[in-house]
Amino acid sequence: MTDKPATGRILLSVTGMHPQRWYELLSRERPVVLEPNGPEDPSVEYAVVWKQQPGILSRLPNLKAIFSLGAGVDHIFADPDLPDVPIVRVVAQNLTQYMVEYVCWRVLDHQRQGRIYRTQQQEKVWHEPPQPPANEVAVGIMGLGELGGTAARALTALGFKVNGWSRRPHRMEGVTGFHGDEGLTPFLNATDILVVLLPLTAATEGIIDRSVLERLRQEGPLGGPCLINAGRGPLQREADILEALERGTLKEASLDVFEHEPLDPDSPLWSHPRVFVTPHAAASSDPAHLVAPMLAQMAAHDRGEPLKNLVDRKAGY
Amino acid sequence: MTDKPATGRILLSVTGMHPQRWYELLSRERPVVLEPNGPEDPSVEYAVVWKQQPGILSRLPNLKAIFSLGAGVDHIFADPDLPDVPIVRVVAQNLTQYMVEYVCWRVLDHQRQGRIYRTQQQEKVWHEPPQPPANEVAVGIMGLGELGGTAARALTALGFKVNGWSRRPHRMEGVTGFHGDEGLTPFLNATDILVVLLPLTAATEGIIDRSVLERLRQEGPLGGPCLINAGRGPLQREADILEALERGTLKEASLDVFEHEPLDPDSPLWSHPRVFVTPHAAASSDPAHLVAPMLAQMAAHDRGEPLKNLVDRKAGY
Repeated sequence: MTDKPATGRILLSVTGMHPQRWYELLSRERPVVLEPNGPEDPSVEYAVVWKQQPGILSRLPNLKAIFSLGAGVDHIFADPDLPDVPIVRVVAQNLTQYMVEYVCWRVLDHQRQGRIYRTQQQEKVWHEPPQPPANEVAVGIMGLGELGGTAARALTALGFKVNGWSRRPHRMEGVTGFHGDEGLTPFLNATDILVVLLPLTAATEGIIDRSVLERLRQEGPLGGPCLINAGRGPLQREADILEALERGTLKEASLDVFEHEPLDPDSPLWSHPRVFVTPHAAASSDPAHLVAPMLAQMAAHDRGEPLKNLVDRKAGY
Repeated sequence: MTDKPATGRILLSVTGMHPQRWYELLSRERPVVLEPNGPEDPSVEYAVVWKQQPGILSRLPNLKAIFSLGAGVDHIFADPDLPDVPIVRVVAQNLTQYMVEYVCWRVLDHQRQGRIYRTQQQEKVWHEPPQPPANEVAVGIMGLGELGGTAARALTALGFKVNGWSRRPHRMEGVTGFHGDEGLTPFLNATDILVVLLPLTAATEGIIDRSVLERLRQEGPLGGPCLINAGRGPLQREADILEALERGTLKEASLDVFEHEPLDPDSPLWSHPRVFVTPHAAASSDPAHLVAPMLAQMAAHDRGEPLKNLVDRKAGY
């Protein structure tokens, strides 16, 4: 029998979700606390957070790194007293897999006219609506990171034309690349189904607005453009989406994220016949799949190895 | 100016669809007739058919080959006076592409709990149902021909576990193969989503019956097995499907084909909350995409080259 090596504590600070499952899984390897012990707690070396209590991290003088419980990290930067330590983004095979499934599912449902078929079935109508094949439909992906890049490859394999837009140039085989402000209009003009997988930063907040929706290809094979947001809710202006649906500049939308979550029962998005709502579930963060790589990174860092999947603090993602 | 080379006539014999578009496209290259000229018409060299009038082909003494307007050829064998000439199946890039889109779309909708999310949205419920990732869900494809094989590859790329069943052994990378009568039970026992892409023959008619549905994996990750039939309607026993849905041995079904088409307005399938109906539209046969390879094959055959995509008359497909 050998003693476990002494390890620093983990502070687990989450809001808007239950900490129980995370607590159990993390505790198997390291001591976990939900609050610092006193105004300053030198025993904590790592923080695992989701929308942490503002200021809580500044009370940990020996904090070595912050781990986010999701691919997005904007919730961490909302803290004005954020200590200057490395921030690690979760990159789980499973998270990417879930997101690619969601994106392919929603793209196919828009392209294959799922809504029209469901309406026809209610009315017992036997009729084939126009059905452009995937190779005549252009999917435009905003954000070509780990998630967007993998989704682009999957959609290309399914036969779709794929355009990609990112802040900086990104070359991907089989994907027509656009970048920066000057690339946005040509990208949108060539896009029938817009897939939003951008990080949320000061530069992207509210980017999916009336002006973006109006620039999507209006004369495309689906009889109007479609929007899929699986990124972050505050990327979108929901009033503009509703207006575009009413004016006909947007045909349909699949929204997994919202300006305020959970989505308000009074939101007209719930009952709009051309909107498909899921409860921020495109890429479910299964604790069991996420905790193991997190603990492995902590152990590696304790041995002096570099941390992986670090967030660029300057860029904000 | 050169004269067009003399070419034999085409007989176009279709029922249940409008011949107009096919007539126009075929006529651009060869003379086309809709009926033989007299009890025997030696001027016709090729027949292009969909559910042809029985006996009509036996009136063509110089018939060189029969072309089917779909991947299935069971409609051709329904003719008791079928002449003994080669039968060519349509293999269009587009037909395969459409079918793969349909199969991936329906598999993802079952796996990602589309029905549950649509119900929740109607009730404004913000809740994430169990969501097994694709690599925990086994799709079983019956029929590993051109369509089934391509669908298997696409589903593997999306991360699904894929089982395949066919009459004779078929090896495919990444697909767990089963074959013959003795392979059917282990194949069904290991399958969460059953995709039917079999040809319709005397041996497969009615194969999707109560006994097959009951053998699907009952304790799988989706809370019950799902059925997708994109093959032929008479492969399925609709009474057995409805019974399995009621008894709970089948969770959901996506049906593109039916025992009798168009589906009778009185069929309970139309209004069943766990059945998704499409009007035999999984793989739309766009005339423009199908006629060109057909005419190219006729020209090649006239030059003495062998015909491709021939039907095995003995096997019936």
